[in-house]
Amino acid sequence: MERVETPPDVVIRRLPLYARSLRALLQQGVTLVSSHELGARINVTAAQIRKDLSLFGEFGQQGRGYEVEQLLHQIERILGLTQEWRVALVGIGHLGTAIARHEEFHRQGIRIAALFDSDPHKIGASINGMPILGADQIPEVIPAQGIKLAIIAVPARHAQAVADRLIAAGVRAILNYAPIVIQVPDGVWIRDIDPVIMLHSMTYYLAHDEATHVGIL
Amino acid sequence: MERVETPPDVVIRRLPLYARSLRALLQQGVTLVSSHELGARINVTAAQIRKDLSLFGEFGQQGRGYEVEQLLHQIERILGLTQEWRVALVGIGHLGTAIARHEEFHRQGIRIAALFDSDPHKIGASINGMPILGADQIPEVIPAQGIKLAIIAVPARHAQAVADRLIAAGVRAILNYAPIVIQVPDGVWIRDIDPVIMLHSMTYYLAHDEATHVGIL
Repeated sequence: MERVETPPDVVIRRLPLYARSLRALLQQGVTLVSSHELGARINVTAAQIRKDLSLFGEFGQQGRGYEVEQLLHQIERILGLTQEWRVALVGIGHLGTAIARHEEFHRQGIRIAALFDSDPHKIGASINGMPILGADQIPEVIPAQGIKLAIIAVPARHAQAVADRLIAAGVRAILNYAPIVIQVPDGVWIRDIDPVIMLHSMTYYLAHDEATHVGIL
Repeated sequence: MERVETPPDVVIRRLPLYARSLRALLQQGVTLVSSHELGARINVTAAQIRKDLSLFGEFGQQGRGYEVEQLLHQIERILGLTQEWRVALVGIGHLGTAIARHEEFHRQGIRIAALFDSDPHKIGASINGMPILGADQIPEVIPAQGIKLAIIAVPARHAQAVADRLIAAGVRAILNYAPIVIQVPDGVWIRDIDPVIMLHSMTYYLAHDEATHVGIL
């Protein structure tokens, strides 16, 4: 069977950044933007933007720049954001509660639609009018709601089991906040958010600089 | 002046993952690990691990694997995690509160040491015994505490101004939760966490797969 070639994942990861910037420009009333201006906002070269977009067709007009609204709609269409994606959130601790409440999580195309926890003290409570369901209801609720996306915010020791249960119920993409690498089968997507790991990847540079400075002194 | 060549940033970003896995192995009482086993835990090939580590010196013994505790200490030393890094957190909304409370944020080498907000209703309250200070105290508190790392959890429209103020006060590395690209001068490091962007980079694949399935039917 012939398959359309999939663009590199690094490009797919940049498209939402382009869309986020275009959305901000649109809110500011900007109607036209050059690849140079757009690039400067997200620390990407104009050439990179043009190259990335060229993988998906023809955008903009030579020497005129991009129509902000049109390019935004085109990128949203590519990313599948013309539909709304219902997302399950598992683990309603401090972090999960913040995720459920944080307005940014209800941005373009994303709606947190089901909350799960395994703590009997939390089950039945609600956040923003949404009830917290028992994690044992995952196999029933996820397929019933047609949920394909999930956010995991449980402790590391439970994360793999939760992921397995979500995937068995039909989840195909997971955003993982647990500080562990979750193993997923082919055809399931996972992205990790570990702020401590990100901090640790910057202390390297700070420690290194300090050493250099001390060396100079 | 001669300068040691800096390893690629992508390698620096992987080192904390190795350390996280080694810490988990250590807790499980594992004392020796092969590059193959370590790689399998983090979806990296054994060859990649050996190549990454070779940039920093000699580790492990041919055919014997790595001493877990020793390799962990070596990586922590490379990352500058043998000292504790005090971190300032700006923006004590739902997300900032979760960050301040989340035990994971007090992992290895990281300590949230100062909380700032600009809301007069929040200033003076405390989280885990730590007082929330006014953002106008940043220029005074950051240098006094020798803080070099900061987490920004303010709304997008305030993020650049907060970053500018932090950097002017001596911050050299920022973990940014605001959904905007913050511009920083040379010599300042920044990493972004935007879960919505990460979800949007996965909806591409889900939408694409659905289209393929429909096409097959």
